[in-house]
Amino acid sequence: MSTHLNDGSLTPLYQQLMEEIKVGILNNEYVPGEKILSEMELSELYHVSRITVRRAIEELCTEGYLVKQQGKGTFVNPRKMSRKIEQIGDVMGFSEACRACGMVPGAKVLTVQRCPVRADEKRFFSLDSEENVLYLQRVRTADGEPIMIENSFFPYNAFKSLNPNELNDASLFKYLKNTFGRTPTSTSQTTLEIVRASTELATYLDIITGDPLFYMNAYFLDQNKEPLLIGRQYIVGSRFVFNF
Amino acid sequence: MSTHLNDGSLTPLYQQLMEEIKVGILNNEYVPGEKILSEMELSELYHVSRITVRRAIEELCTEGYLVKQQGKGTFVNPRKMSRKIEQIGDVMGFSEACRACGMVPGAKVLTVQRCPVRADEKRFFSLDSEENVLYLQRVRTADGEPIMIENSFFPYNAFKSLNPNELNDASLFKYLKNTFGRTPTSTSQTTLEIVRASTELATYLDIITGDPLFYMNAYFLDQNKEPLLIGRQYIVGSRFVFNF
Repeated sequence: MSTHLNDGSLTPLYQQLMEEIKVGILNNEYVPGEKILSEMELSELYHVSRITVRRAIEELCTEGYLVKQQGKGTFVNPRKMSRKIEQIGDVMGFSEACRACGMVPGAKVLTVQRCPVRADEKRFFSLDSEENVLYLQRVRTADGEPIMIENSFFPYNAFKSLNPNELNDASLFKYLKNTFGRTPTSTSQTTLEIVRASTELATYLDIITGDPLFYMNAYFLDQNKEPLLIGRQYIVGSRFVFNF
Repeated sequence: MSTHLNDGSLTPLYQQLMEEIKVGILNNEYVPGEKILSEMELSELYHVSRITVRRAIEELCTEGYLVKQQGKGTFVNPRKMSRKIEQIGDVMGFSEACRACGMVPGAKVLTVQRCPVRADEKRFFSLDSEENVLYLQRVRTADGEPIMIENSFFPYNAFKSLNPNELNDASLFKYLKNTFGRTPTSTSQTTLEIVRASTELATYLDIITGDPLFYMNAYFLDQNKEPLLIGRQYIVGSRFVFNF
Protein backbone atom coordinates (compact mmCIF):
# COMPACT_ATOMS: atom_id res chain seq x y z
CA MET A 1 0.00 0.00 0.00
CA SER A 2 1.27 3.46 -0.83
CA THR A 3 2.19 5.60 2.14
CA HIS A 4 2.42 8.78 0.10
CA LEU A 5 -0.70 10.90 0.18
CA ASN A 6 -0.88 13.84 -2.20
CA ASP A 7 -0.32 17.01 -0.21
CA GLY A 8 -1.00 19.34 -3.16
CA SER A 9 -4.25 17.62 -4.05
CA LEU A 10 -7.68 19.28 -3.92
CA THR A 11 -8.99 16.18 -2.14
CA PRO A 12 -8.54 16.63 1.62
CA LEU A 13 -5.88 14.38 3.12
CA TYR A 14 -8.38 12.65 5.41
CA GLN A 15 -10.36 11.57 2.33
CA GLN A 16 -7.27 10.25 0.62
CA LEU A 17 -6.45 8.29 3.77
CA MET A 18 -10.05 6.98 3.92
CA GLU A 19 -9.76 5.71 0.35
CA GLU A 20 -6.43 4.01 1.12
CA ILE A 21 -7.89 2.13 4.07
CA LYS A 22 -11.18 1.37 2.30
CA VAL A 23 -9.50 -0.14 -0.76
CA GLY A 24 -7.31 -2.20 1.58
CA ILE A 25 -10.44 -3.59 3.24
CA LEU A 26 -12.32 -4.25 -0.02
CA ASN A 27 -9.29 -6.05 -1.46
CA ASN A 28 -8.86 -8.11 1.70
CA GLU A 29 -5.48 -6.57 2.42
CA TYR A 30 -6.86 -6.08 5.93
CA VAL A 31 -8.27 -9.08 7.78
CA PRO A 32 -11.82 -8.50 9.12
CA GLY A 33 -11.82 -8.27 12.90
CA GLU A 34 -8.18 -7.17 12.79
CA LYS A 35 -7.15 -4.21 14.93
CA ILE A 36 -5.88 -1.36 12.78
CA LEU A 37 -2.81 0.74 13.57
CA SER A 38 -3.15 3.35 16.32
CA GLU A 39 -3.75 7.02 15.47
CA MET A 40 -0.11 7.75 16.18
CA GLU A 41 1.16 4.90 14.01
CA LEU A 42 -1.10 5.87 11.08
CA SER A 43 -0.06 9.49 11.49
CA GLU A 44 3.63 8.52 11.21
CA LEU A 45 3.10 6.02 8.38
CA TYR A 46 1.20 8.49 6.18
CA HIS A 47 2.98 11.66 7.29
CA VAL A 48 -0.26 13.38 8.28
CA SER A 49 -1.54 14.96 11.49
CA ARG A 50 -3.46 13.00 14.11
CA ILE A 51 -6.46 15.23 13.45
CA THR A 52 -6.46 14.00 9.85
CA VAL A 53 -6.21 10.37 10.99
CA ARG A 54 -9.01 10.84 13.51
CA ARG A 55 -11.35 12.34 10.92
CA ALA A 56 -10.63 9.53 8.43
CA ILE A 57 -11.31 6.88 11.07
CA GLU A 58 -14.51 8.58 12.23
CA GLU A 59 -15.89 8.70 8.67
CA LEU A 60 -14.93 5.05 8.06
CA CYS A 61 -16.81 4.11 11.24
CA THR A 62 -19.86 6.06 9.96
CA GLU A 63 -19.65 4.16 6.66
CA GLY A 64 -19.36 0.83 8.49
CA TYR A 65 -15.88 -0.18 7.37
CA LEU A 66 -14.36 0.17 10.82
CA VAL A 67 -15.77 -0.25 14.29
CA LYS A 68 -14.48 1.30 17.51
CA GLN A 69 -14.37 -0.74 20.69
CA GLN A 70 -14.19 1.38 23.80
CA GLY A 71 -10.77 1.10 25.41
CA LYS A 72 -9.61 -1.57 22.96
CA GLY A 73 -8.99 0.25 19.70
CA THR A 74 -10.43 0.36 16.19
CA PHE A 75 -11.13 -2.81 14.24
CA VAL A 76 -11.99 -3.80 10.67
CA ASN A 77 -15.71 -4.63 10.65
CA PRO A 78 -16.31 -8.37 10.20
CA ARG A 79 -16.21 -9.22 6.51
CA LYS A 80 -19.32 -8.38 4.55
CA MET A 81 -20.50 -11.53 2.84
CA SER A 82 -19.79 -11.59 -0.85
CA ARG A 83 -22.32 -13.09 -3.23
CA LYS A 84 -22.53 -13.53 -6.93
CA ILE A 85 -25.54 -11.62 -8.19
CA GLU A 86 -28.18 -13.56 -10.15
CA GLN A 87 -27.61 -13.22 -13.84
CA ILE A 88 -28.45 -15.21 -16.96
CA GLY A 89 -26.78 -18.62 -16.85
CA ASP A 90 -25.41 -18.01 -13.38
CA VAL A 91 -28.01 -17.97 -10.61
CA MET A 92 -26.37 -18.58 -7.27
CA GLY A 93 -28.46 -19.59 -4.28
CA PHE A 94 -27.94 -18.19 -0.80
CA SER A 95 -26.64 -21.47 0.66
CA GLU A 96 -24.08 -21.82 -2.10
CA ALA A 97 -23.00 -18.15 -1.83
CA CYS A 98 -22.67 -18.53 1.91
CA ARG A 99 -20.47 -21.63 1.68
CA ALA A 100 -18.33 -19.96 -1.00
CA CYS A 101 -17.57 -17.32 1.67
CA GLY A 102 -16.64 -19.98 4.19
CA MET A 103 -19.77 -19.40 6.25
CA VAL A 104 -22.43 -21.88 7.37
CA PRO A 105 -25.86 -21.14 5.83
CA GLY A 106 -28.99 -21.46 7.95
CA ALA A 107 -32.73 -21.08 7.37
CA LYS A 108 -35.84 -20.89 9.54
CA VAL A 109 -39.32 -21.07 8.06
CA LEU A 110 -41.47 -18.19 9.33
CA THR A 111 -44.63 -18.88 7.38
CA VAL A 112 -46.10 -20.92 4.52
CA GLN A 113 -49.51 -19.94 3.24
CA ARG A 114 -51.94 -19.86 0.38
CA CYS A 115 -52.53 -16.30 -0.84
CA PRO A 116 -54.66 -14.53 -3.46
CA VAL A 117 -52.68 -13.84 -6.62
CA ARG A 118 -51.41 -10.32 -7.30
CA ALA A 119 -51.14 -8.53 -10.61
CA ASP A 120 -47.44 -9.21 -11.29
CA GLU A 121 -47.76 -12.85 -10.14
CA LYS A 122 -50.71 -13.40 -12.47
CA ARG A 123 -48.67 -12.11 -15.38
CA PHE A 124 -45.46 -13.99 -14.60
CA PHE A 125 -47.08 -17.36 -13.82
CA SER A 126 -49.96 -16.94 -16.31
CA LEU A 127 -52.54 -17.55 -13.59
CA ASP A 128 -56.24 -16.65 -13.46
CA SER A 129 -57.55 -14.19 -10.90
CA GLU A 130 -59.20 -17.00 -8.88
CA GLU A 131 -55.99 -18.99 -8.61
CA ASN A 132 -53.60 -18.75 -5.67
CA VAL A 133 -49.92 -18.51 -4.95
CA LEU A 134 -47.98 -20.36 -2.28
CA TYR A 135 -46.04 -17.94 -0.13
CA LEU A 136 -42.96 -19.17 1.74
CA GLN A 137 -41.16 -16.85 4.11
CA ARG A 138 -37.84 -17.73 5.75
CA VAL A 139 -35.11 -15.92 7.61
CA ARG A 140 -31.68 -16.85 6.26
CA THR A 141 -28.58 -16.80 8.42
CA ALA A 142 -24.83 -17.01 7.90
CA ASP A 143 -22.88 -18.46 10.82
CA GLY A 144 -26.06 -17.97 12.86
CA GLU A 145 -26.41 -14.25 12.13
CA PRO A 146 -29.58 -13.15 10.29
CA ILE A 147 -28.73 -11.88 6.77
CA MET A 148 -32.04 -11.71 4.95
CA ILE A 149 -35.77 -12.29 4.90
CA GLU A 150 -36.45 -14.53 1.92
CA ASN A 151 -39.97 -14.29 0.49
CA SER A 152 -40.71 -16.83 -2.24
CA PHE A 153 -43.91 -17.10 -4.27
CA PHE A 154 -44.95 -20.15 -6.34
CA PRO A 155 -48.05 -21.03 -8.35
CA TYR A 156 -50.16 -22.80 -5.71
CA ASN A 157 -51.40 -25.82 -7.64
CA ALA A 158 -48.00 -26.95 -8.83
CA PHE A 159 -46.32 -26.49 -5.45
CA LYS A 160 -49.02 -27.24 -2.86
CA SER A 161 -47.12 -30.38 -1.80
CA LEU A 162 -44.12 -28.26 -0.72
CA ASN A 163 -43.17 -29.39 2.76
CA PRO A 164 -42.01 -26.57 5.07
CA ASN A 165 -40.50 -29.09 7.50
CA GLU A 166 -37.86 -29.87 4.92
CA LEU A 167 -36.96 -26.20 4.49
CA ASN A 168 -35.41 -25.43 7.86
CA ASP A 169 -31.62 -25.19 7.50
CA ALA A 170 -31.89 -26.38 3.91
CA SER A 171 -31.19 -24.97 0.47
CA LEU A 172 -34.42 -23.96 -1.30
CA PHE A 173 -32.80 -24.42 -4.71
CA LYS A 174 -31.65 -27.96 -3.80
CA TYR A 175 -35.09 -28.81 -2.40
CA LEU A 176 -36.82 -27.61 -5.59
CA LYS A 177 -34.45 -29.70 -7.66
CA ASN A 178 -34.77 -32.87 -5.59
CA THR A 179 -38.54 -32.65 -5.03
CA PHE A 180 -39.89 -31.01 -8.17
CA GLY A 181 -37.04 -31.60 -10.64
CA ARG A 182 -36.78 -27.89 -11.29
CA THR A 183 -33.73 -25.64 -10.93
CA PRO A 184 -33.64 -21.83 -11.00
CA THR A 185 -31.17 -21.14 -13.80
CA SER A 186 -31.87 -17.57 -14.86
CA THR A 187 -33.97 -14.53 -14.07
CA SER A 188 -36.29 -12.75 -16.46
CA GLN A 189 -35.99 -9.47 -14.57
CA THR A 190 -34.42 -8.32 -11.34
CA THR A 191 -34.58 -5.00 -9.56
CA LEU A 192 -32.30 -3.99 -6.72
CA GLU A 193 -32.93 -0.97 -4.54
CA ILE A 194 -32.35 0.34 -1.04
CA VAL A 195 -35.23 0.49 1.46
CA ARG A 196 -35.35 1.17 5.20
CA ALA A 197 -36.18 -1.66 7.59
CA SER A 198 -39.71 -1.62 8.95
CA THR A 199 -40.17 -2.48 12.64
CA GLU A 200 -41.23 -6.00 11.64
CA LEU A 201 -38.21 -6.68 9.44
CA ALA A 202 -35.83 -5.09 11.93
CA THR A 203 -37.03 -7.48 14.64
CA TYR A 204 -36.50 -10.57 12.47
CA LEU A 205 -33.10 -9.34 11.28
CA ASP A 206 -31.79 -8.13 14.64
CA ILE A 207 -31.14 -4.60 13.36
CA ILE A 208 -32.60 -1.18 14.11
CA THR A 209 -35.82 0.18 12.51
CA GLY A 210 -34.80 2.36 9.57
CA ASP A 211 -31.50 0.57 8.92
CA PRO A 212 -30.84 0.26 5.17
CA LEU A 213 -31.68 -2.99 3.37
CA PHE A 214 -31.21 -4.21 -0.18
CA TYR A 215 -34.64 -5.04 -1.60
CA MET A 216 -34.24 -7.50 -4.45
CA ASN A 217 -37.21 -8.51 -6.57
CA ALA A 218 -36.42 -11.34 -8.99
CA TYR A 219 -38.43 -13.49 -11.39
CA PHE A 220 -36.74 -16.89 -11.63
CA LEU A 221 -36.98 -19.21 -14.61
CA ASP A 222 -36.16 -22.92 -14.47
CA GLN A 223 -33.86 -24.98 -16.73
CA ASN A 224 -36.56 -24.98 -19.46
CA LYS A 225 -37.11 -21.19 -19.21
CA GLU A 226 -40.45 -21.82 -17.51
CA PRO A 227 -41.53 -19.42 -14.70
CA LEU A 228 -40.55 -21.05 -11.40
CA LEU A 229 -40.71 -18.60 -8.52
CA ILE A 230 -40.73 -14.94 -7.57
CA GLY A 231 -38.26 -13.90 -4.89
CA ARG A 232 -38.60 -10.73 -2.83
CA GLN A 233 -35.63 -10.54 -0.48
CA TYR A 234 -34.80 -7.99 2.19
CA ILE A 235 -31.05 -8.18 2.80
CA VAL A 236 -29.16 -6.47 5.63
CA GLY A 237 -27.08 -3.75 3.98
CA SER A 238 -24.18 -3.90 6.42
CA ARG A 239 -23.79 -7.65 5.95
CA PHE A 240 -23.81 -8.11 2.22
CA VAL A 241 -21.85 -7.33 -0.92
CA PHE A 242 -23.07 -8.15 -4.40
CA ASN A 243 -20.25 -9.31 -6.60
CA PHE A 244 -20.86 -9.73 -10.29
CA MET B 1 -55.32 -5.05 -8.21
CA SER B 2 -56.89 -7.60 -5.87
CA THR B 3 -58.99 -6.14 -3.10
CA HIS B 4 -59.16 -9.38 -1.13
CA LEU B 5 -56.65 -9.68 1.63
CA ASN B 6 -56.34 -13.03 3.38
CA ASP B 7 -58.00 -12.81 6.77
CA GLY B 8 -56.93 -16.29 7.88
CA SER B 9 -53.31 -15.70 6.97
CA LEU B 10 -50.44 -15.69 9.45
CA THR B 11 -49.15 -12.52 7.79
CA PRO B 12 -50.71 -9.51 9.50
CA LEU B 13 -53.25 -7.70 7.33
CA TYR B 14 -51.23 -4.46 7.38
CA GLN B 15 -48.29 -6.32 5.84
CA GLN B 16 -50.48 -7.80 3.13
CA LEU B 17 -51.79 -4.32 2.38
CA MET B 18 -48.24 -2.95 2.32
CA GLU B 19 -47.25 -5.58 -0.25
CA GLU B 20 -50.28 -4.75 -2.42
CA ILE B 21 -49.42 -1.07 -2.51
CA LYS B 22 -45.67 -1.68 -2.90
CA VAL B 23 -46.09 -3.99 -5.88
CA GLY B 24 -48.44 -1.45 -7.43
CA ILE B 25 -45.73 1.20 -7.13
CA LEU B 26 -42.90 -1.01 -8.41
CA ASN B 27 -45.00 -2.03 -11.41
CA ASN B 28 -45.94 1.57 -12.13
CA GLU B 29 -49.61 0.90 -11.49
CA TYR B 30 -49.44 4.01 -9.30
CA VAL B 31 -48.09 7.21 -10.82
CA PRO B 32 -45.24 8.78 -8.80
CA GLY B 33 -46.36 12.00 -7.14
CA GLU B 34 -49.95 10.74 -7.25
CA LYS B 35 -52.05 11.12 -4.12
CA ILE B 36 -53.15 7.74 -2.82
CA LEU B 37 -56.65 6.95 -1.53
CA SER B 38 -57.59 8.26 1.89
CA GLU B 39 -57.45 6.01 4.96
CA MET B 40 -61.22 5.64 4.83
CA GLU B 41 -61.29 4.76 1.14
CA LEU B 42 -58.50 2.18 1.53
CA SER B 43 -60.25 0.74 4.57
CA GLU B 44 -63.46 0.25 2.53
CA LEU B 45 -61.68 -1.03 -0.57
CA TYR B 46 -59.71 -3.70 1.28
CA HIS B 47 -62.30 -4.45 4.01
CA VAL B 48 -59.83 -3.76 6.81
CA SER B 49 -59.84 -1.41 9.79
CA ARG B 50 -58.44 2.11 9.62
CA ILE B 51 -55.84 1.11 12.19
CA THR B 52 -54.58 -1.51 9.73
CA VAL B 53 -54.50 1.03 6.92
CA ARG B 54 -52.65 3.57 9.08
CA ARG B 55 -49.98 1.05 10.10
CA ALA B 56 -49.42 -0.03 6.46
CA ILE B 57 -49.06 3.58 5.34
CA GLU B 58 -46.68 4.44 8.18
CA GLU B 59 -44.41 1.53 7.33
CA LEU B 60 -44.46 2.42 3.61
CA CYS B 61 -43.43 5.96 4.53
CA THR B 62 -40.54 4.56 6.62
CA GLU B 63 -39.47 2.45 3.63
CA GLY B 64 -39.63 5.47 1.33
CA TYR B 65 -42.43 4.30 -0.99
CA LEU B 66 -44.92 6.89 0.22
CA VAL B 67 -44.50 10.38 1.57
CA LYS B 68 -46.91 12.28 3.82
CA GLN B 69 -47.56 15.95 3.20
CA GLN B 70 -49.01 17.73 6.22
CA GLY B 71 -52.64 18.63 5.60
CA LYS B 72 -52.54 17.44 1.97
CA GLY B 73 -52.53 13.65 2.16
CA THR B 74 -50.19 10.80 1.32
CA PHE B 75 -48.38 10.61 -2.02
CA VAL B 76 -46.37 8.09 -4.01
CA ASN B 77 -42.73 9.11 -3.69
CA PRO B 78 -41.33 10.50 -6.98
CA ARG B 79 -40.21 7.63 -9.18
CA LYS B 80 -36.85 6.12 -8.36
CA MET B 81 -34.68 6.23 -11.43
CA SER B 82 -34.23 2.88 -13.10
CA ARG B 83 -30.90 1.94 -14.57
CA LYS B 84 -29.55 -1.09 -16.30
CA ILE B 85 -26.69 -2.44 -14.25
CA GLU B 86 -23.29 -2.83 -15.95
CA GLN B 87 -22.85 -6.35 -17.18
CA ILE B 88 -20.81 -8.12 -19.87
CA GLY B 89 -21.79 -6.89 -23.32
CA ASP B 90 -24.21 -4.35 -21.91
CA VAL B 91 -22.57 -1.46 -20.07
CA MET B 92 -24.94 1.46 -19.81
CA GLY B 93 -23.64 4.91 -18.96
CA PHE B 94 -25.38 7.28 -16.56
CA SER B 95 -26.41 9.76 -19.28
CA GLU B 96 -27.97 7.02 -21.37
CA ALA B 97 -29.73 5.46 -18.35
CA CYS B 98 -31.04 8.86 -17.37
CA ARG B 99 -32.49 9.58 -20.81
CA ALA B 100 -34.04 6.11 -20.96
CA CYS B 101 -36.02 7.17 -17.86
CA GLY B 102 -37.11 10.39 -19.52
CA MET B 103 -34.85 12.52 -17.33
CA VAL B 104 -32.22 15.07 -18.33
CA PRO B 105 -28.69 14.03 -17.28
CA GLY B 106 -26.29 16.60 -15.85
CA ALA B 107 -22.68 16.60 -14.66
CA LYS B 108 -20.42 18.98 -12.79
CA VAL B 109 -16.69 18.40 -12.51
CA LEU B 110 -15.56 18.66 -8.88
CA THR B 111 -11.90 17.80 -9.31
CA VAL B 112 -9.33 16.45 -11.76
CA GLN B 113 -5.92 15.53 -10.39
CA ARG B 114 -2.84 13.40 -10.72
CA CYS B 115 -2.58 10.89 -7.87
CA PRO B 116 -0.16 8.21 -6.68
CA VAL B 117 -1.27 4.77 -7.84
CA ARG B 118 -2.91 2.41 -5.37
CA ALA B 119 -2.54 -1.36 -5.10
CA ASP B 120 -5.70 -2.32 -7.02
CA GLU B 121 -5.07 0.34 -9.70
CA LYS B 122 -1.51 -0.96 -10.21
CA ARG B 123 -2.85 -4.45 -10.75
CA PHE B 124 -5.74 -3.52 -13.06
CA PHE B 125 -3.82 -1.07 -15.28
CA SER B 126 -0.47 -2.95 -15.01
CA LEU B 127 1.30 0.21 -13.78
CA ASP B 128 4.57 0.59 -11.87
CA SER B 129 4.61 2.03 -8.37
CA GLU B 130 6.13 5.32 -9.61
CA GLU B 131 3.38 5.85 -12.19
CA ASN B 132 0.25 7.91 -11.54
CA VAL B 133 -3.46 7.77 -12.10
CA LEU B 134 -5.71 10.58 -13.29
CA TYR B 135 -8.60 11.06 -10.90
CA LEU B 136 -11.80 12.68 -12.18
CA GLN B 137 -14.61 13.43 -9.74
CA ARG B 138 -18.03 14.65 -10.87
CA VAL B 139 -21.45 15.01 -9.34
CA ARG B 140 -24.13 13.58 -11.65
CA THR B 141 -27.67 14.90 -11.69
CA ALA B 142 -31.01 13.84 -13.15
CA ASP B 143 -33.40 16.71 -13.88
CA GLY B 144 -31.07 18.86 -11.77
CA GLU B 145 -31.24 16.67 -8.67
CA PRO B 146 -27.93 15.13 -7.49
CA ILE B 147 -27.96 11.34 -7.93
CA MET B 148 -24.36 10.25 -7.52
CA ILE B 149 -20.73 11.15 -6.97
CA GLU B 150 -18.83 9.63 -9.88
CA ASN B 151 -15.15 8.90 -9.20
CA SER B 152 -13.21 7.74 -12.26
CA PHE B 153 -9.56 6.64 -12.34
CA PHE B 154 -7.45 6.34 -15.51
CA PRO B 155 -3.78 5.52 -16.15
CA TYR B 156 -2.23 8.99 -16.11
CA ASN B 157 0.05 8.85 -19.14
CA ALA B 158 -2.61 7.66 -21.57
CA PHE B 159 -5.24 10.16 -20.36
CA LYS B 160 -3.31 13.24 -19.27
CA SER B 161 -4.83 15.21 -22.17
CA LEU B 162 -8.33 14.67 -20.76
CA ASN B 163 -10.02 18.08 -20.73
CA PRO B 164 -12.28 18.66 -17.70
CA ASN B 165 -13.95 21.61 -19.43
CA GLU B 166 -15.55 19.20 -21.87
CA LEU B 167 -16.93 17.07 -19.05
CA ASN B 168 -19.50 19.42 -17.54
CA ASP B 169 -23.01 18.31 -18.55
CA ALA B 170 -21.52 15.71 -20.87
CA SER B 171 -21.46 11.93 -21.14
CA LEU B 172 -18.09 10.53 -19.99
CA PHE B 173 -18.55 7.44 -22.13
CA LYS B 174 -19.24 9.56 -25.24
CA TYR B 175 -16.24 11.80 -24.48
CA LEU B 176 -13.94 8.78 -24.13
CA LYS B 177 -15.18 7.43 -27.43
CA ASN B 178 -14.89 10.71 -29.36
CA THR B 179 -11.55 11.79 -27.86
CA PHE B 180 -9.68 8.56 -27.22
CA GLY B 181 -11.54 6.11 -29.48
CA ARG B 182 -12.29 3.88 -26.54
CA THR B 183 -15.67 2.65 -25.30
CA PRO B 184 -16.44 0.92 -22.01
CA THR B 185 -18.09 -2.30 -23.15
CA SER B 186 -17.79 -4.67 -20.21
CA THR B 187 -16.60 -4.92 -16.62
CA SER B 188 -14.06 -7.37 -15.28
CA GLN B 189 -15.48 -7.19 -11.77
CA THR B 190 -18.09 -5.12 -10.00
CA THR B 191 -19.06 -4.97 -6.35
CA LEU B 192 -22.21 -3.32 -5.04
CA GLU B 193 -22.78 -2.60 -1.40
CA ILE B 194 -24.56 -0.19 0.93
CA VAL B 195 -22.60 2.46 2.83
CA ARG B 196 -23.69 5.49 4.87
CA ALA B 197 -23.06 8.97 3.52
CA SER B 198 -20.12 10.80 5.08
CA THR B 199 -20.59 14.50 5.83
CA GLU B 200 -18.66 15.36 2.66
CA LEU B 201 -20.76 13.15 0.36
CA ALA B 202 -23.99 14.24 2.02
CA THR B 203 -23.20 17.88 1.27
CA TYR B 204 -22.52 17.21 -2.42
CA LEU B 205 -25.60 15.02 -2.76
CA ASP B 206 -28.02 17.20 -0.80
CA ILE B 207 -28.90 14.42 1.64
CA ILE B 208 -28.36 13.86 5.38
CA THR B 209 -25.14 12.44 6.88
CA GLY B 210 -25.67 8.72 7.42
CA ASP B 211 -28.25 8.33 4.63
CA PRO B 212 -27.75 5.04 2.76
CA LEU B 213 -25.86 5.02 -0.54
CA PHE B 214 -25.06 2.33 -3.08
CA TYR B 215 -21.27 2.07 -3.36
CA MET B 216 -20.38 0.55 -6.72
CA ASN B 217 -16.79 -0.32 -7.57
CA ALA B 218 -16.33 -1.38 -11.20
CA TYR B 219 -13.36 -2.21 -13.42
CA PHE B 220 -14.26 -1.24 -16.99
CA LEU B 221 -12.74 -2.81 -20.10
CA ASP B 222 -12.86 -1.22 -23.55
CA GLN B 223 -14.00 -2.73 -26.85
CA ASN B 224 -10.69 -4.65 -27.11
CA LYS B 225 -10.97 -5.97 -23.52
CA GLU B 226 -8.17 -3.58 -22.47
CA PRO B 227 -8.39 -1.96 -19.00
CA LEU B 228 -9.96 1.49 -19.46
CA LEU B 229 -11.08 2.98 -16.17
CA ILE B 230 -12.02 2.22 -12.60
CA GLY B 231 -15.31 3.67 -11.37
CA ARG B 232 -16.14 4.17 -7.70
CA GLN B 233 -19.65 5.62 -7.50
CA TYR B 234 -21.66 6.72 -4.49
CA ILE B 235 -25.33 6.65 -5.51
CA VAL B 236 -28.22 8.07 -3.47
CA GLY B 237 -30.22 5.04 -2.29
CA SER B 238 -33.60 6.74 -2.34
CA ARG B 239 -33.14 7.90 -5.96
CA PHE B 240 -31.98 4.81 -7.76
CA VAL B 241 -33.08 1.33 -8.79
CA PHE B 242 -30.79 -1.14 -10.47
CA ASN B 243 -32.60 -3.09 -13.12
CA PHE B 244 -30.87 -6.06 -14.69
